[in-house]
Amino acid sequence: MKGYPEAVSRLIDAFARLPGIGRRSAERLAFHVLRESNDEADALAHAIMDAKTKIAHCPICWNICDATHCSICSDARREAAIVLVVEQPKDVLAIEKAGSFRGIYHVLLGRLDPLAGVGPEGIVLQPLLARLDDSTKNAQSVAVEELVLGMNPDLEGDTTALWIAREASKRGVRVTRLARGLASGSQLDLANPGVIADAIAGRTGL
Amino acid sequence: MKGYPEAVSRLIDAFARLPGIGRRSAERLAFHVLRESNDEADALAHAIMDAKTKIAHCPICWNICDATHCSICSDARREAAIVLVVEQPKDVLAIEKAGSFRGIYHVLLGRLDPLAGVGPEGIVLQPLLARLDDSTKNAQSVAVEELVLGMNPDLEGDTTALWIAREASKRGVRVTRLARGLASGSQLDLANPGVIADAIAGRTGL
Repeated sequence: MKGYPEAVSRLIDAFARLPGIGRRSAERLAFHVLRESNDEADALAHAIMDAKTKIAHCPICWNICDATHCSICSDARREAAIVLVVEQPKDVLAIEKAGSFRGIYHVLLGRLDPLAGVGPEGIVLQPLLARLDDSTKNAQSVAVEELVLGMNPDLEGDTTALWIAREASKRGVRVTRLARGLASGSQLDLANPGVIADAIAGRTGL
Repeated sequence: MKGYPEAVSRLIDAFARLPGIGRRSAERLAFHVLRESNDEADALAHAIMDAKTKIAHCPICWNICDATHCSICSDARREAAIVLVVEQPKDVLAIEKAGSFRGIYHVLLGRLDPLAGVGPEGIVLQPLLARLDDSTKNAQSVAVEELVLGMNPDLEGDTTALWIAREASKRGVRVTRLARGLASGSQLDLANPGVIADAIAGRTGL
């Protein structure tokens, strides 16, 4: 045996191309697939193909959806004048779970990351500017009045936020960002200095 | 958006069922699949289905193979009287890479692990005993004279080795195990106490 049979090597290679899966993990996954029932392996293979054929991005907010427009952009009860900008579809899900945001979204599908070579063309920024420039490109054809920046609170997120804030200001659109401070339910003595600095800078009157 | 579209949830669930893949990793993999080209996703899906349909276990040694018998059991130049028992197909590959073993193999596809509920029926032990009992069940219809135990050098591996050694002795088959000691190329001062104890107990004359 010079190596694994070709079908096994190909499966290991395919797993190893996934992010965060090294050669050893890919081998373990491949042997798991070989060991499990045909039904389970079929379920995985078909889930991959189904997701690719059935899932598209909403042409307004670029969230993933399985219809022509996502359920949020199609919902006339949402305030289309307020657009919350996030990096990924999972961020939309997290905010929707909190249940307090009544506006709509824009999903960048990434963040500016100059060190990794991701510039403004690498993420969904042009369609966001188009929504600001042309109200027919926004949901319900409503003009965008406020952009809420909801990028992750780190270096790349802040870089992306600055870029968007500058472009939005040029267009006279109000820009806000999600508040930073102590995490509700956390302990002050365990908060890191950045969190405490944010909490002091953003202190509010009672 | 109450949750992800159904096709996405199904893909996340399918990834999350793989070993070592938690919920968050499964989400990351699913979004990677959604983002990558259709060709790449197709390659993964087809590799999974191909491996399941093309790969079987050799009926003699239970190694994975894509023919009726594996290339080692089919090779008349190998010494079929010496059978090296390992836990997994990847162990066969590792030993073949070293290139110094001229016998054939038996792959247990697991190890005895009483704490995890894996008993003798949970791994490929009965076919191994059948090879010892009936030479027509071994490659080249040669009687097995020596069983080399090549389980991993840990608690479960040793448990498995003891079980096999007992059964093989009953049948008058010689049992040996792979040597333990210092890893070639390693540093003595970094070896753990178990390794050093093995090296002392197994010291050889010069």
